[in-house]
Amino acid sequence: MVTDTKDKAVVLLSGGLDSATALAIAQQRGFDCYALSVDYGQRHRSELEAAVRVANAADVPLKTLPLDLRAIGGSALTDDIEVPESETAGIPVTYVPARNTIMLSLALAYAEVLGADDIFIGVNAVDYSGYPDCRPEFIAAYQQMARLATKAGVEGAELSIHTPLIDLTKAEIIRRGIDLGVDYSLTVSCYQADREGRACGMCDSCRIRREGFRAAGIPDPTRYQASESSG
Amino acid sequence: MVTDTKDKAVVLLSGGLDSATALAIAQQRGFDCYALSVDYGQRHRSELEAAVRVANAADVPLKTLPLDLRAIGGSALTDDIEVPESETAGIPVTYVPARNTIMLSLALAYAEVLGADDIFIGVNAVDYSGYPDCRPEFIAAYQQMARLATKAGVEGAELSIHTPLIDLTKAEIIRRGIDLGVDYSLTVSCYQADREGRACGMCDSCRIRREGFRAAGIPDPTRYQASESSG
Repeated sequence: MVTDTKDKAVVLLSGGLDSATALAIAQQRGFDCYALSVDYGQRHRSELEAAVRVANAADVPLKTLPLDLRAIGGSALTDDIEVPESETAGIPVTYVPARNTIMLSLALAYAEVLGADDIFIGVNAVDYSGYPDCRPEFIAAYQQMARLATKAGVEGAELSIHTPLIDLTKAEIIRRGIDLGVDYSLTVSCYQADREGRACGMCDSCRIRREGFRAAGIPDPTRYQASESSG
Repeated sequence: MVTDTKDKAVVLLSGGLDSATALAIAQQRGFDCYALSVDYGQRHRSELEAAVRVANAADVPLKTLPLDLRAIGGSALTDDIEVPESETAGIPVTYVPARNTIMLSLALAYAEVLGADDIFIGVNAVDYSGYPDCRPEFIAAYQQMARLATKAGVEGAELSIHTPLIDLTKAEIIRRGIDLGVDYSLTVSCYQADREGRACGMCDSCRIRREGFRAAGIPDPTRYQASESSG
């Protein structure tokens, strides 16, 4: 009898809505998933706890790597810069320098150790058009580089960076996730969630998420700090 | 009166012979250098102390980022895999998965925060032909990706990855460094140096270094564990 062995994939899991959906899609596509979370000193620590909940619910192993980017600085998510509570133009102050480049590089190392040729990342070019490292041209260039970077690549493996959400609106992502059984009450997207993982309801990320549920016509399961709307 | 402001550059500094030379070359080219060292849990901890000595001697600030790659594993330099003491074929077990990809990504983040458009890395394709991420085609692809990855890139900056040693033999690197006043007695290249930074004299890295000094016709200032040849 031949054992049915699935291909392995590394899935970057932040604990937010997007990466939880990317994980569900990777599983639906038949991959044996290994979640990777990076503790980069983000102010919203409850995202990391959300990553643990999401990985458990999906029944996948989760590895959390500590990498304190506060030593480098330059972002409202790691520095003492104020998170804006109204819409801003251009690249937002919540942008973490080279964040996706760093995350993908750690995923690449983990993939190489696992013998995985596939990496999933829940970037989204529609809602996060202000972030340079969420654009399709960045991902294409990253994949090109990654194929030259590793032992597996030298030996002929074709590493792929999967971005299943890149062209979807937030509402489309949510509908997709709901179809796949994602429990969004486990996720935290807020840039300044409190210790219990309750969202502020006012930052860019909260606004985009709330509007996504509204546009998808799906009740928002997010727990907010002020309203205590749901649990 | 106009102040003469130099362009900033991030220099990856491991504390080894190559990166110390790359730093000296970056300074000679007129850059205001910021050294970056990554504590990735390498077994040869004395390299990190060497990085501090080299940065002090060159009078540049040094930032050391902790990133424990032992959690990912897969290399004799971070795992409990034996470091070989005779020449091996193919990609050596001392290869750290995606090492240069990760180092360059951290340098990219630091460069973005500093407003630097230049990164120096002391990779060498001659002596380390077994490492995929030391090849010119990898560096070219990385630079291509990096230009798309950052806010500065979006705003038109042309980020450059400089690899001044890539085509040099070890002997040529040493001669270049000696011309620039590098004190190689401060550096540690050995994969299994002891706590005092004394080299084993037997690993790949020691063999290549020793042979480099011999070929350059320059007395080897390396302190070895057994011979106590110099101090």
